[in-house]
Amino acid sequence: MPEAIEMFRLEGLPDFAPGDDVADAIITLLDEQKKALQQGDILVIAHKVISKSEGAIRFLQDVEPGPDAIELARTVNKDPRKVQVVLDQSNRIVRAVSHAGHKEGVLIAEHKLGHVCANAAVDESNADQEGMLITLPDDPDSSARQIADKLNQHYGITTGVVISDTFGRPWRLGQTNVAIGVASIPALMVMEGETDAYGRPLTVTAPAFADELAGASGLLMEKSAATPVIIFRGLHWTPCDSSSRDLIRSAKEDLFR
Amino acid sequence: MPEAIEMFRLEGLPDFAPGDDVADAIITLLDEQKKALQQGDILVIAHKVISKSEGAIRFLQDVEPGPDAIELARTVNKDPRKVQVVLDQSNRIVRAVSHAGHKEGVLIAEHKLGHVCANAAVDESNADQEGMLITLPDDPDSSARQIADKLNQHYGITTGVVISDTFGRPWRLGQTNVAIGVASIPALMVMEGETDAYGRPLTVTAPAFADELAGASGLLMEKSAATPVIIFRGLHWTPCDSSSRDLIRSAKEDLFR
Repeated sequence: MPEAIEMFRLEGLPDFAPGDDVADAIITLLDEQKKALQQGDILVIAHKVISKSEGAIRFLQDVEPGPDAIELARTVNKDPRKVQVVLDQSNRIVRAVSHAGHKEGVLIAEHKLGHVCANAAVDESNADQEGMLITLPDDPDSSARQIADKLNQHYGITTGVVISDTFGRPWRLGQTNVAIGVASIPALMVMEGETDAYGRPLTVTAPAFADELAGASGLLMEKSAATPVIIFRGLHWTPCDSSSRDLIRSAKEDLFR
Repeated sequence: MPEAIEMFRLEGLPDFAPGDDVADAIITLLDEQKKALQQGDILVIAHKVISKSEGAIRFLQDVEPGPDAIELARTVNKDPRKVQVVLDQSNRIVRAVSHAGHKEGVLIAEHKLGHVCANAAVDESNADQEGMLITLPDDPDSSARQIADKLNQHYGITTGVVISDTFGRPWRLGQTNVAIGVASIPALMVMEGETDAYGRPLTVTAPAFADELAGASGLLMEKSAATPVIIFRGLHWTPCDSSSRDLIRSAKEDLFR
């Protein structure tokens, strides 16, 4: 483990639209700034730029809500078309709640990718057109892999990539960024077999490395999303064939859904 | 918001026992290493060293389990004395579960401080004597305040202090560090009134700054707990009268307990 690391962010990335290449944009911007990625750098990238570049967006005006969405929309005081998009993104709704004094209630959903989160991560903020909803990328691990491959090829190094979203938490107020896609870095640092400072086995300790990185990125990633790429330099990690699925607790083993 | 920050850890802190002064130990070690804290530095400190220095420890051999603990211990296959300590630390038990194939089950408890976590944060790992259990400090905000005051006085600056513990999460595997005590820094960065990159209001966005710092500390804090102090340098923040209670969602507003 290193004694010190550095985190910095890329300033000046353009807006992204379907068909744009995020890795190319990062390389171009770094070139302009006379910077280069280094061996072992890890990039945390806000999913919104990936979603936009991949066209993981919906427009309210194109959505025809079904009967389930219309009924649920009444419960939570939401636009039935938004609810339909949430249902399209979900395995199931875990909680549906209306809040007195709030314009809209909240749907806690199990996203098709396994993440349990508000409104199945469907987001209006940072949508650049009226009626535009941003969804998670279809396969964020694959998106992360493609970006990492392109960066690695260009610089002749091995980088790690984490794709992040901002989630609320049960029990705690405020939001933190979590990992919804990973490439090369271990999502969990499984420490089975290691011992604590007194020689006792740490059998159940598995730091959620990808979530630690995503969470840390929030210290420099403006919530306005104008700075969606944060770079970590100086961490020690071993490249591996990883997946964000390693972060998902199975419904069977979960006490809270 | 800064463009870059640095995180580093203190190597060489001693073990702590009741009566030891954590702030003094940090100052002494920094002096030995010819280092000094700088204006705006934020220290994340693993609670275990605070708990030990404050005597927030229990010994199994001193615990007389009551009837509730004895009954609950049967359900979750735990030492009834451990369960008694968990109950002593808790407002209430949220879930009690035994796992087939695991030696011990788990108690998800609402700690007296409001945190919902496994076994009310009662911990055997990094306990340096047989039968020793480490509990959370009685008033971690006050502990953080005292350390910050001493550091500020010594260096003539303003520092922030976060006291952390390692929690599991519902829905997600692996652990991350969270804040259980804060001094000077805002626990939540409430962004009401700000707008996203497209001018839409970010009315419900409140990054959990103290949890972001705690989570990030896990990137450098060895789980063996030999390196309990991580220093963040370069963040912009405004000193305030903060409390870790700002991070606690009230039971009434919580959907998952």
